[in-house]
Amino acid sequence: MRAVAARSGELRLVDVDRPEPVEGEALVRVLACGICGSDLHFMQFGEEMMRASRESGNAQFAPDFSSDIIMGHEFCCEVVAYGPNTTGPVGIGDRITSVPSRGAYSNTYPGGYSEYMVLDAAMMLPVQDSVPTEHAATTEPMAVGLHAVRAAKLTAGEPTVVYGCGPVGLATIASLRNEGAGTIIASDFSPRRRELAGILGADIVVDPRETPPIAALQEQGYQPGQDVVLFDAIGVRGTIAMLMREAPQRGARCVIVGVCMQEDTIVPMAGIEKEIQLKFVLGYTPDEFAETLANITDGSIDSNPIITGRVGLDGVAQAFQTLGDPEEHCKIMVTPHEPNSL
Amino acid sequence: MRAVAARSGELRLVDVDRPEPVEGEALVRVLACGICGSDLHFMQFGEEMMRASRESGNAQFAPDFSSDIIMGHEFCCEVVAYGPNTTGPVGIGDRITSVPSRGAYSNTYPGGYSEYMVLDAAMMLPVQDSVPTEHAATTEPMAVGLHAVRAAKLTAGEPTVVYGCGPVGLATIASLRNEGAGTIIASDFSPRRRELAGILGADIVVDPRETPPIAALQEQGYQPGQDVVLFDAIGVRGTIAMLMREAPQRGARCVIVGVCMQEDTIVPMAGIEKEIQLKFVLGYTPDEFAETLANITDGSIDSNPIITGRVGLDGVAQAFQTLGDPEEHCKIMVTPHEPNSL
Repeated sequence: MRAVAARSGELRLVDVDRPEPVEGEALVRVLACGICGSDLHFMQFGEEMMRASRESGNAQFAPDFSSDIIMGHEFCCEVVAYGPNTTGPVGIGDRITSVPSRGAYSNTYPGGYSEYMVLDAAMMLPVQDSVPTEHAATTEPMAVGLHAVRAAKLTAGEPTVVYGCGPVGLATIASLRNEGAGTIIASDFSPRRRELAGILGADIVVDPRETPPIAALQEQGYQPGQDVVLFDAIGVRGTIAMLMREAPQRGARCVIVGVCMQEDTIVPMAGIEKEIQLKFVLGYTPDEFAETLANITDGSIDSNPIITGRVGLDGVAQAFQTLGDPEEHCKIMVTPHEPNSL
Repeated sequence: MRAVAARSGELRLVDVDRPEPVEGEALVRVLACGICGSDLHFMQFGEEMMRASRESGNAQFAPDFSSDIIMGHEFCCEVVAYGPNTTGPVGIGDRITSVPSRGAYSNTYPGGYSEYMVLDAAMMLPVQDSVPTEHAATTEPMAVGLHAVRAAKLTAGEPTVVYGCGPVGLATIASLRNEGAGTIIASDFSPRRRELAGILGADIVVDPRETPPIAALQEQGYQPGQDVVLFDAIGVRGTIAMLMREAPQRGARCVIVGVCMQEDTIVPMAGIEKEIQLKFVLGYTPDEFAETLANITDGSIDSNPIITGRVGLDGVAQAFQTLGDPEEHCKIMVTPHEPNSL
């Protein structure tokens, strides 16, 4: 089968054996798979990611960066076959989505940048007929937003500020709106991303070069000392320190959902002076994933605006380049069985 | 009156006017005032402290480092007089303690390294006859420990690890014991400090060069994924990164109660992988201060072991040097009206 493999920082089209489902697994045909910022990060910082995982004792994440890795963990698929003695939640030919139950950066199991993949049949969730395939494929990134919001332990009507309106920031905004946050301030340099932030549910959207997000918050009546949550959905060097510096007095919670891959510098005194809480988050729970799919199904979360393009397998490498420009695209779907159309 | 003033990183004996209490204030005679690690920090990093405060918008903390500052904010005093139209909680000649209601690093108001000081009369708390003066003077540092423990939002019987057994770490240990923590692991390079940690209530005390604190925790039956709180009571460069690296999977809370005065480096990926929460804390609330005094009064917190020496005003500069060696002293009391005896 055709697939796109990453090896030593390069992406290339490959032809590999179609995987065979063993007991407990399903073979699925990939209909759509979103390109995640983590995949871009992995191309750039794969070795740092693996070293950090090793150092923090996470043996699960230890791929060989110099061998082929077929990425892609935001997918909607059609079930082709079940392994021996295995049943699943849907029949052959029906659509499912799933947490990436065979890992997201594996040398062994292909991900969604591939015509076919195998999944843990017991973890697959049915996609209702009413849900477009590409919307179902956004369950995974939208679940990241729900997880970040749950980690914030929002009080009812609490104001929030989202720094960065890429897919992670937008997913956070959508869940904030859905989970009963108060005023949502969103901040991004990109006009296109700011427009999307408004569509996804931000009340006030600012270009931080013109309006500091905290100033916008104060214009909405925020008083020092009130509860507030700041989300770092930028995830590059310096953003944690920026949130700590900009957080209002006193006790602001900062949820770090963007993933900075490198060492970073902070000023502990800024955290101490303001008694800041930094909560680092990663991924989502299976329950949050299922809840997000239900939200997409009933329309309470509409991810459609973030989907800005689609490519065949031969367009993936180009799409990775294109995603460097926030004005051009937000979420690009890989459609392995369709011709390239970007 | 005699006092010890800090100016541009130097301590010297000075003769200054005795302050006059205005309405709302009391004039008090300093009986004992503990030397705080923050005062040592202020001598070394005063300009950094002030810059960090300015940058984080804390206008309250903006002393002139090049003019005299009479430090000392851990005191027990005797009331000498009240200002006009002012009453207080005790009569003339009775003992009080108080949060440093006139600031801890002020160019205007002398602190406790002085024969006399003025305080907000309404914030003073009576010291019962049964409580030794020096114990009452430890209310302030012990309240820092209570505040850190409250910020951790301990679950009943939750295991904890305290990194660093200086006065802040010891105060944390005492409050952990008093607030119903489970196993308390304490870690310090210094044998003397480790001994004090055991006396204050740590169950297991380790030299981290011989036994990693987390290994000690696991020997006590800790399983990955269980709740746990790690306290950073070291507060030098690298300790936050160390806690993040050593924290077990998953979701550990780290309370940063030690104060690192400089920029510091962290590895965000370590936090993200393990979904760590960092909670920075500072000081205590007035209620926590009052509760700590009550705990000292009824004996549920015994701060006596941490008090290891006393000096007159002419011994303060030497005491600041001596406190650099953790084997020699822990908390030194300044007794402005007594001859030097260190």
